[in-house]
Amino acid sequence: MSEVETTSFEDCLQRLIKSLEASSYEEAASQLSALHPGEVARLLEAVPPKNRTELWLRIDSATQGDILIEFSEDVQVQLLHEMEVESIVKATEGMDMDDLADIVPNLPESALHNLLLTLDHKHRDHLKQVLSYAEDSAGGLMNTDIITVRPDASVATVTRYLRLLKEMPVDTDQVFVVDRSFNYLGSVHISALLTKEPEQKMLNLSSLEITQPILATMPEKDVAKLFEQRNLISAPVIDENNQLIGRITIDDVVDVIRDEAEHSVMSMAGLDEEDDVFAPVLEITKRRSVWLGVNLITAFIAVFFIGLFKATLEQKVALAILMPVVASMGGVAGTQTLILVTRGIATGRVTISNLKLLMTKEVAVGFLNGIFWAVIIAIATYIWFEDAVISLVISLAIIANLIFAAFSGAFLPLLLVKLKIDPALAGGVILTTITDVIGFVAFLGLAAMVI
Amino acid sequence: MSEVETTSFEDCLQRLIKSLEASSYEEAASQLSALHPGEVARLLEAVPPKNRTELWLRIDSATQGDILIEFSEDVQVQLLHEMEVESIVKATEGMDMDDLADIVPNLPESALHNLLLTLDHKHRDHLKQVLSYAEDSAGGLMNTDIITVRPDASVATVTRYLRLLKEMPVDTDQVFVVDRSFNYLGSVHISALLTKEPEQKMLNLSSLEITQPILATMPEKDVAKLFEQRNLISAPVIDENNQLIGRITIDDVVDVIRDEAEHSVMSMAGLDEEDDVFAPVLEITKRRSVWLGVNLITAFIAVFFIGLFKATLEQKVALAILMPVVASMGGVAGTQTLILVTRGIATGRVTISNLKLLMTKEVAVGFLNGIFWAVIIAIATYIWFEDAVISLVISLAIIANLIFAAFSGAFLPLLLVKLKIDPALAGGVILTTITDVIGFVAFLGLAAMVI
Repeated sequence: MSEVETTSFEDCLQRLIKSLEASSYEEAASQLSALHPGEVARLLEAVPPKNRTELWLRIDSATQGDILIEFSEDVQVQLLHEMEVESIVKATEGMDMDDLADIVPNLPESALHNLLLTLDHKHRDHLKQVLSYAEDSAGGLMNTDIITVRPDASVATVTRYLRLLKEMPVDTDQVFVVDRSFNYLGSVHISALLTKEPEQKMLNLSSLEITQPILATMPEKDVAKLFEQRNLISAPVIDENNQLIGRITIDDVVDVIRDEAEHSVMSMAGLDEEDDVFAPVLEITKRRSVWLGVNLITAFIAVFFIGLFKATLEQKVALAILMPVVASMGGVAGTQTLILVTRGIATGRVTISNLKLLMTKEVAVGFLNGIFWAVIIAIATYIWFEDAVISLVISLAIIANLIFAAFSGAFLPLLLVKLKIDPALAGGVILTTITDVIGFVAFLGLAAMVI
Repeated sequence: MSEVETTSFEDCLQRLIKSLEASSYEEAASQLSALHPGEVARLLEAVPPKNRTELWLRIDSATQGDILIEFSEDVQVQLLHEMEVESIVKATEGMDMDDLADIVPNLPESALHNLLLTLDHKHRDHLKQVLSYAEDSAGGLMNTDIITVRPDASVATVTRYLRLLKEMPVDTDQVFVVDRSFNYLGSVHISALLTKEPEQKMLNLSSLEITQPILATMPEKDVAKLFEQRNLISAPVIDENNQLIGRITIDDVVDVIRDEAEHSVMSMAGLDEEDDVFAPVLEITKRRSVWLGVNLITAFIAVFFIGLFKATLEQKVALAILMPVVASMGGVAGTQTLILVTRGIATGRVTISNLKLLMTKEVAVGFLNGIFWAVIIAIATYIWFEDAVISLVISLAIIANLIFAAFSGAFLPLLLVKLKIDPALAGGVILTTITDVIGFVAFLGLAAMVI
């Protein structure tokens, strides 16, 4: 048996693209058949939409379902709309309820209708329940295939019952203890069923566990934090009446963690992690232009302030040459604080309670780095322009901008969170507008006073 | 039983800080005792080092171990150096080998010596084995507490054996099938032990599984990708001779995914995700100043090019006012492509094989957005300065800069990866230097030609 070779992903893609360039679609599709659904999804996302469709229609409907749930939303929507209603129904057969619930909003009307007809009463109820919760809540994330046992059942009874089942739902690591009306009482890890005495009762074993149930309305971000901090593999989900309604497994949580992380990087440039990298050029152009437009407005705000000092600039063109240095140093220093605080909020390290402490620290750092770099920049400026006044002015402007940058970088994210604006998305733009304006005004304003 | 309340984290921190401000350390420490180690670690990271030490020394050594492994490296090092050798030994007792291996490099010499004395022969060998692999490889990530079974053992035999064990290692979800010389043959999910016929042999059951073993030298990034793409909960680790040496569990992989994601955000501002947010001001100042210094050099490179057009700027001060607009639009457009491609490389969507396709697309997008925004900016410029020549010059400069920005943003990350430079760290700085220079030179150069 040879080890897993992940470097082969690039080889796979290279071979795939070669086959596609030769229009050998059958050959290309056959290359995919040996791979895991997650890998097939990555490969299909890495080729242009036209080729993607050609390949997709050559994949067996039975495996399409497993691949569908691995796509980013943009690609999922594209491919669902290329499929026949019949294939969609076949592909979604036997899908976990949480996965099905993710796909449902992207389905064409007719496919949804036919799909619901194929589900039995119990599964339709389960789907309805998952759909009744927000997609980004614990309820939207849960599976409904759980094994429940009574509190007075013994290890022996439960193992007999499981042997009759012949199979457990995928990734079952615990069975849940509920009373007659499905109130959640606790959980027992299945390893306990293998190691504990046969006469032990479920309720006793469950009291050893620390798995607290998750309320279905909890935001998925908080679910992810909980899984991370407590090293959970799965957790029971209850509704507001303490009734057990499902379980969340770590593989879905991993997706949340990855998506959240992708989101925080991508949104810094106004990008969406669910977008297809190979979407049509016009579509991409439109999406990107929004962010460029926002930036253009902020750029004009910044240069408007430069415009106020037109007369000063006309007197000393060295000011025009140097002003980007002041703005950019403030932008970099501010962004450091901004990212630190934004990530701190996301990971729970920074809250309103310790912000004052943190802000004091950041402003002190800004002040010290301001002084240090002000000296360096003053010297460099003097060497270049041999003008002591400009040297003095730029060093004061640097100190002012770095202090203000630290203050804004620390203050802004929490303000945005309070206003329910995503700091990862808007923080950077607003901050650099502030540091640009402060930089230009401090530098040119001081210059106007002394020149 | 009430649901888990994660909103209480902020309350916890608020109460903790209140107790600390009142110097009631005992009270503060007692607030921590009911919490999960991961949560205690987050809280301790959210208070300044002085308070952190006071609290830490009041926590029971028996639980300190579980908390230690949850800290970011900076904080772990700080607290290990505050501890007595004796407490360190007590805290690390019974720790998983992968966790112990993470701590070992941060231990004071004397503590390491005493710690090794407490380990029995078998555990010392295990630790040596884990330490023999790079910290960021599968071998450095693995646990050595595995349950192995022989291929000809039946379900009944194995369950009898497990009942004798009384307990399984934490998060055991599969037992591994090995031959006499520990060659890896396959794995059986423990749910199969509960549901399959008692006379079934392990080798038959393992053939149903698809868990391929991971080679100990595989980089942890690839391990994480594998877990994600295949929805694994745990995976066996083998050495180069196909001998089973350990297992990797999802909770450690979640940490890798989170760290990698944090790293890609933090390094965009030259920050390190392992740094203590509340490190001493001078320490932070020093760390930050490196990045500011790098930025200063790039800023001076950019303004050097402005300096070349001093005469032109003296003639038309409007050019000085408008030039940041050209640079900033290029920077934003380029950063969009850069982040897209950098993340694409990290997630496997973008490789050298499809870069040409992607680059063509991105340059087309840059061209289209360039034309669109060039028109808008030309109009805005004309309204402001009533100068058709400047309007024309700025619109041409915008188009040129956006095309070049798209090209650089797509090309740069793969070039940096080839040069073994982290694109998340260096990409942004280099790119904005390029777009600044192109922006200034295109704008002022064109202006110099026509004015």
